[in-house]
Amino acid sequence: MVPPRIHNTALVESDDIGQGTAIWAFVHVMKGAHIGANCNIGDNCFVESGVIVGDNVTLKNSNMLFEGLVLEEGVFVGPHVFFTNDRYPRSPRLPEAASRYHDKSWLVSTRVERGASLGAAAVLIAGVTIGKYAMVGAGSVVSKDVAPHALVIGAPAHRVGWVCRCGEKLNVQNNTADCKTCGDRYVIEGEMIRRLELS
Amino acid sequence: MVPPRIHNTALVESDDIGQGTAIWAFVHVMKGAHIGANCNIGDNCFVESGVIVGDNVTLKNSNMLFEGLVLEEGVFVGPHVFFTNDRYPRSPRLPEAASRYHDKSWLVSTRVERGASLGAAAVLIAGVTIGKYAMVGAGSVVSKDVAPHALVIGAPAHRVGWVCRCGEKLNVQNNTADCKTCGDRYVIEGEMIRRLELS
Amino acid sequence: MVPPRIHNTALVESDDIGQGTAIWAFVHVMKGAHIGANCNIGDNCFVESGVIVGDNVTLKNSNMLFEGLVLEEGVFVGPHVFFTNDRYPRSPRLPEAASRYHDKSWLVSTRVERGASLGAAAVLIAGVTIGKYAMVGAGSVVSKDVAPHALVIGAPAHRVGWVCRCGEKLNVQNNTADCKTCGDRYVIEGEMIRRLELS
Repeated sequence: MVPPRIHNTALVESDDIGQGTAIWAFVHVMKGAHIGANCNIGDNCFVESGVIVGDNVTLKNSNMLFEGLVLEEGVFVGPHVFFTNDRYPRSPRLPEAASRYHDKSWLVSTRVERGASLGAAAVLIAGVTIGKYAMVGAGSVVSKDVAPHALVIGAPAHRVGWVCRCGEKLNVQNNTADCKTCGDRYVIEGEMIRRLELS
Repeated sequence: MVPPRIHNTALVESDDIGQGTAIWAFVHVMKGAHIGANCNIGDNCFVESGVIVGDNVTLKNSNMLFEGLVLEEGVFVGPHVFFTNDRYPRSPRLPEAASRYHDKSWLVSTRVERGASLGAAAVLIAGVTIGKYAMVGAGSVVSKDVAPHALVIGAPAHRVGWVCRCGEKLNVQNNTADCKTCGDRYVIEGEMIRRLELS
Repeated sequence: MVPPRIHNTALVESDDIGQGTAIWAFVHVMKGAHIGANCNIGDNCFVESGVIVGDNVTLKNSNMLFEGLVLEEGVFVGPHVFFTNDRYPRSPRLPEAASRYHDKSWLVSTRVERGASLGAAAVLIAGVTIGKYAMVGAGSVVSKDVAPHALVIGAPAHRVGWVCRCGEKLNVQNNTADCKTCGDRYVIEGEMIRRLELS
């Protein structure tokens, strides 16, 4: 049993942090946020109440995670990835817009599935799902769902290849693909890809 | 009379902060910055000397406001919006460029008008004006002025619709538009839109 | 001999900081990072072990410099520029990807040459070199090398002009160019430009 390691400048108001997780300088974790075991939470990150972070997640520096966000196990979040949770935001303090914030119907959830990677400074528009093991290029703007294992780049983000569970770009031939690093093999079915489970 | 609430890790060097304003963790407000009443200044924001922030403004986390910026009343600034104030910056410490910084002719101002919203990670090129109640999509790069009530996205940002004062996307028919949420009605005149003041 | 000035909220674990350098609030410089003389390191910056920063460099706020990065003398880094050092990142804690991080073959270096400028929120894909005195527009995504003195914008970044050492955009006529501010003259040779050394 390894307790979390928390830097002395970090503000951790949640008591729901998994064992072995490291929390670095100037981080702020609000009450009611869940962070799993064996995570690494880089300098200057902010985790709002209601956020769920699974085990083995790596957050590089300055990530701001807002209510409505779920990061599943083993996700990688590069530095300064931008999450959002309101598609048409206004200042709730503006009298003309106050009615929009009388309840939480403005809140839109976002999910990043197991093992996916988000490159530095990527922007996720509220409501998207990033499929398992997908990879989002640095600086991309993701405005619709990303398929598992897809490699997407650009603004708006579009698919330019496929990636293996291990992170390697897959070598594609016709309807099959394979990883030269770990040997995994895949079958491509239209806009989806499926890993072959070998016995 | 409600004094500002200032988190104990924040550095507030200005004495010009309005009543009821909340300033959160690791914020730095420099001497000579003006912040109005009833604002919310999220974690890690930085407000430089000379910046003017009106009443009822919401700054989400990690916004850096530099000299020359004016945010009018009720503006919403999503997380990590990027403001700039120099179109052709160099390190002032580089001898070859030192002459550029002998005076302040490099400084270019930016203005965001009443009730406008700036999405997460939007970039504003120095010198633009964002019209009242306009909405800038997350991750957009704004290189020219944005009309009041315009919804703009992309890099460079371009108009894809119109938004109401309340934040709702307007329903457009020919030269009129209306808001299904608050009932406001508008007239479109070329690249501008005008709200009808009902008696 | 002017010792570095270090704000009392900054965490400086390196003893390799040059004279006259200023380090501002909430900065974190790790052990083993090198920062030259007469630099300005703005609020919230993070400098990882192994990073090399030359003399006279200006880092605006919230820049995160990761291992493998070299900034030569007199570089300007706008607020929130995004550096990366891994082209296909995964969470090293994800069992399916752990083999990728058994050694440092994933690490890719980036270099910014003398006097170059990086605009706010620009993204540099790991492995690029920014030539001396080049200028990268705010919000650009740089995925390949940038020539000396080139002005690049967009995603992916592409060249739209040339800039002088002093930061001024050059006036181009046929195969020559000149600076209306400092009088420097240049010869354009295909996709490169060369400053004429006057006797």
